[in-house]
Amino acid sequence: MRPMRQATTLAAGKSTSGFARPEKIARIKGVDGGASRVGEELEIRGWARSVRTQKERAFIDLNDGSNISGMQAVVNEGTQAWDVINSGVVTTGAAVSVRGALVASPGGKQAAELLVNELEVIGPADPESYPLQKKRHTLEYLRSIAHLRPRTNTIGAVSRVRNQLAYATHKFFQENGFLYVNTPIVTASDCEGAGEQFQVTTLLNGLQAGAGPSPEAVAAAESKVKAQGDAVKTLKEAMKAGSATKEQVDAEVAKLLQAKADVEALKSTGGSTSLPTNKDGSIDYTQDFFSKPSYLTVSGQLNGEIMACAVNDVYTFGPTFRAENSNTSRHLAEFWMVEPEMAFADLNDDMDCAEAYLKYCINHVLEHCDEDLEFFEKNVAKDNLRERLRGVASQEFARITYTEAVEHVLAAKKKFEFPVEWGSDLQSEHERYITEEVFKDRPVIVRDYPKDIKAFYMRLNDDNKTVAAMDVLVPRVGELMGGSQREERLDVLERRIEDNGLEKESYWWYLDLRRYGSQPHAGFGLGFERLVCYVTGVENIRDAIPFPRYPGSAEF
Amino acid sequence: MRPMRQATTLAAGKSTSGFARPEKIARIKGVDGGASRVGEELEIRGWARSVRTQKERAFIDLNDGSNISGMQAVVNEGTQAWDVINSGVVTTGAAVSVRGALVASPGGKQAAELLVNELEVIGPADPESYPLQKKRHTLEYLRSIAHLRPRTNTIGAVSRVRNQLAYATHKFFQENGFLYVNTPIVTASDCEGAGEQFQVTTLLNGLQAGAGPSPEAVAAAESKVKAQGDAVKTLKEAMKAGSATKEQVDAEVAKLLQAKADVEALKSTGGSTSLPTNKDGSIDYTQDFFSKPSYLTVSGQLNGEIMACAVNDVYTFGPTFRAENSNTSRHLAEFWMVEPEMAFADLNDDMDCAEAYLKYCINHVLEHCDEDLEFFEKNVAKDNLRERLRGVASQEFARITYTEAVEHVLAAKKKFEFPVEWGSDLQSEHERYITEEVFKDRPVIVRDYPKDIKAFYMRLNDDNKTVAAMDVLVPRVGELMGGSQREERLDVLERRIEDNGLEKESYWWYLDLRRYGSQPHAGFGLGFERLVCYVTGVENIRDAIPFPRYPGSAEF
Repeated sequence: MRPMRQATTLAAGKSTSGFARPEKIARIKGVDGGASRVGEELEIRGWARSVRTQKERAFIDLNDGSNISGMQAVVNEGTQAWDVINSGVVTTGAAVSVRGALVASPGGKQAAELLVNELEVIGPADPESYPLQKKRHTLEYLRSIAHLRPRTNTIGAVSRVRNQLAYATHKFFQENGFLYVNTPIVTASDCEGAGEQFQVTTLLNGLQAGAGPSPEAVAAAESKVKAQGDAVKTLKEAMKAGSATKEQVDAEVAKLLQAKADVEALKSTGGSTSLPTNKDGSIDYTQDFFSKPSYLTVSGQLNGEIMACAVNDVYTFGPTFRAENSNTSRHLAEFWMVEPEMAFADLNDDMDCAEAYLKYCINHVLEHCDEDLEFFEKNVAKDNLRERLRGVASQEFARITYTEAVEHVLAAKKKFEFPVEWGSDLQSEHERYITEEVFKDRPVIVRDYPKDIKAFYMRLNDDNKTVAAMDVLVPRVGELMGGSQREERLDVLERRIEDNGLEKESYWWYLDLRRYGSQPHAGFGLGFERLVCYVTGVENIRDAIPFPRYPGSAEF
Repeated sequence: MRPMRQATTLAAGKSTSGFARPEKIARIKGVDGGASRVGEELEIRGWARSVRTQKERAFIDLNDGSNISGMQAVVNEGTQAWDVINSGVVTTGAAVSVRGALVASPGGKQAAELLVNELEVIGPADPESYPLQKKRHTLEYLRSIAHLRPRTNTIGAVSRVRNQLAYATHKFFQENGFLYVNTPIVTASDCEGAGEQFQVTTLLNGLQAGAGPSPEAVAAAESKVKAQGDAVKTLKEAMKAGSATKEQVDAEVAKLLQAKADVEALKSTGGSTSLPTNKDGSIDYTQDFFSKPSYLTVSGQLNGEIMACAVNDVYTFGPTFRAENSNTSRHLAEFWMVEPEMAFADLNDDMDCAEAYLKYCINHVLEHCDEDLEFFEKNVAKDNLRERLRGVASQEFARITYTEAVEHVLAAKKKFEFPVEWGSDLQSEHERYITEEVFKDRPVIVRDYPKDIKAFYMRLNDDNKTVAAMDVLVPRVGELMGGSQREERLDVLERRIEDNGLEKESYWWYLDLRRYGSQPHAGFGLGFERLVCYVTGVENIRDAIPFPRYPGSAEF
């Protein structure tokens, strides 16, 4: 392989303090498919998605990860590149560098293509074994090769849309004066309650190495103790009889003590599977890393509230975890959440923020990912995806109470799988009925849910029956975000904690926020992968994150 | 407390799709301290940092978390606000809403102040118990009240600078066409090796509840089995003798089976402290959530490489973990890392990117956090912080090899605690000597380290002795970032894995990246809290993250 050329010889992208990465295909193509750049000499590095060889000409479908359509590279007979192609090393998956002039494309498929002079294979891909040949693969299969699947059209496009949704998230909140805060991932506080948690520990470190001592080894060591004990006994009697010295006895006693120590050592070292315990038999967590049982967080909200009660509006964007054994297309054991928290804010502010944030994300993606969305529309979503997204971004969200939502469902002519009555949770089928049929494909925010089906920290309404909670429902998916105004009244919050069977002592610091400078505040949570699924039309949440974690799987 | 007013009556910030949060003090003050806004009627919500009452006038130092200087609110005798103040409820820490006109400030301390007409206490703060009175607290003490410490000047300013550094990170990489990717937090792959890892498990879930059944309870249940067994025996004999029916025997046998089941249930439920084991005594991890031993990630790099080998330049920004028992001011058990990975890139590209990124972050913070940096300069850093930062941002970084670095240290007239010879790691004292003294306070990138002190995945140089690694050293701190070009040659990488005593099989997917479409790629890692410390001058890393985790502590 020839040495890499200096990147500075490549066409450079937009500069930031003099630094620039080589310009990528998406930027070269710009909004006109590259028509305005025709005539430029370029070098492009990427991977061959496919190679078609004709009699006097070859076509490489070149992709550098920056967009879905890539760049058509045309190689004519008689060039250096032609010889390389004919040697058979340019196969699907190979990394190549091509150099040539951008020319207008005679075919109607693209505005411009690269007429290649020079072609270098940087890294080949053996066509016999490379798993991603041109043919289509199921998403199920691709999950088993997660280290290669971002090279496919679908997962590549998901990666780009996911990136733009993440950046839109930061831009929206930063432009609105929110601070990004990092709430803790490992937590020893009992405050969350909701959802099963993973435990984080170093107690198993010594234990995992493997088998403990075999029962045979222990028995052998113990019989050695017994034999030595007998020897000591015999010698002691001999000493009494005058036929052995005290020094001889002491030497044998020392051997006995050593044999006993050997048994203890054998039992305690090596991979024993017994944990350190307290006198009552419970695990002794003072010996764990954090000196307490510690868990992976299920939500950054309570810590977000700490920050909002100090530095005003904040948002988190980080991983959260659920140890639920649910093998569904809607659940992950590890997923990313966006959780804004606003100070001096009520439920109306919360709904305004949620609506504006969702619209901002959608508009951003419509603007920056049109080609990828078009791909999803044709191949994945199987509906008019972009029109649906534009509908969400352009309409004012309807806002109704939970009580009204229940009335809508009860009045429906439709038959539902699950019955509804005031006080029960709305199921996905009810949520979709409301947003799709009652409100004709318009997003709906439902507020003021019964207190008994919502968390203790949500602000109690004056009716004493409902809380200031809200869920944002969207067509085709149902609930996408959920939030609430938080209970800021110390006495009410304490009562709600007790009524929920929780321990006030565990919440000492959360209560302190209500004790000193309390103010109404509100926030919501968005499961980021759900948003990715919603915007792309991808159905299985395991395809919305690069390396999904679920029961039985933490590979790659 | 009166109900909150609608936020729409407040002066609104910059609008995003019609949405806007109430304007905060930092924006009202703008670049001229608010001089250009004099005359405007405003409502501001925030917390009283202090209240000074004079004969005919009172001053509230009002802070809403958006900056460090807050807004001086002046209350004159005879107003509604004056009465509220005189009732004694406006104390340090109280949440208040003030309404009035922005006026030019007669004192020289600020350009404008708010002349208050109306004052409302939203949430009081009992001066007897509120831990954050006006007096100074040590950072050590503040760590014990992490739920209140972001309300202090220092930690509030750290929060704002940290936010701007995070946003600068996203802006820099997005503007340069990198995709933000989320690498996994929980990993079952053995590939990382470096650093002690936390284990993630659900195996302790059943065990943690507390004591197992007492030996007495088990003995009692077992004696019940024995008694029932005797009863069955007696009855069977009676049946043989014709004095009992088969039905009677069956009934007693059923009771016996139940008693046996009770013993098993007693032994298995309740908190037993024994883990599920295989026949050889090792822990049976097929029963754990991920069916394998699973850990918290120590780096997203290897997964980042997967993505870079598919979608081109990427960066991660997420939490990473070390279970090292190091109680120092430089280590956290949980910290955030920024890890870019560039495709088709060599060590020069890597150094260019690291230098440009650091300069971008520093320039961004100099532009957006001047008031906070001024505070750190006066109160924390104890040197000319901003001048030092400007120096880093404006100078070209020096670039030398490791071999040259060792020569510099060996030639020094200075005495060092640790000796240096070619092949040993550079210590912090050597790194500081090079950047501060040899290069006179100029950042230095050291490259081409001996292969034996660096990781297996770094690209072997042609000399066969060194690898294409680089560290960025800055004055006062030493190493801030470290990176490398990755070994892209399959055969060399396999040899390096073997030479390092690692198992090739564990790296099957990492090797696949070299098997199919391999190309030179490079990246680096930055410990985000180290950057926060560097930019603010804060010395203890536990003050650079809102809720620090370290041995014995995962509170809040």
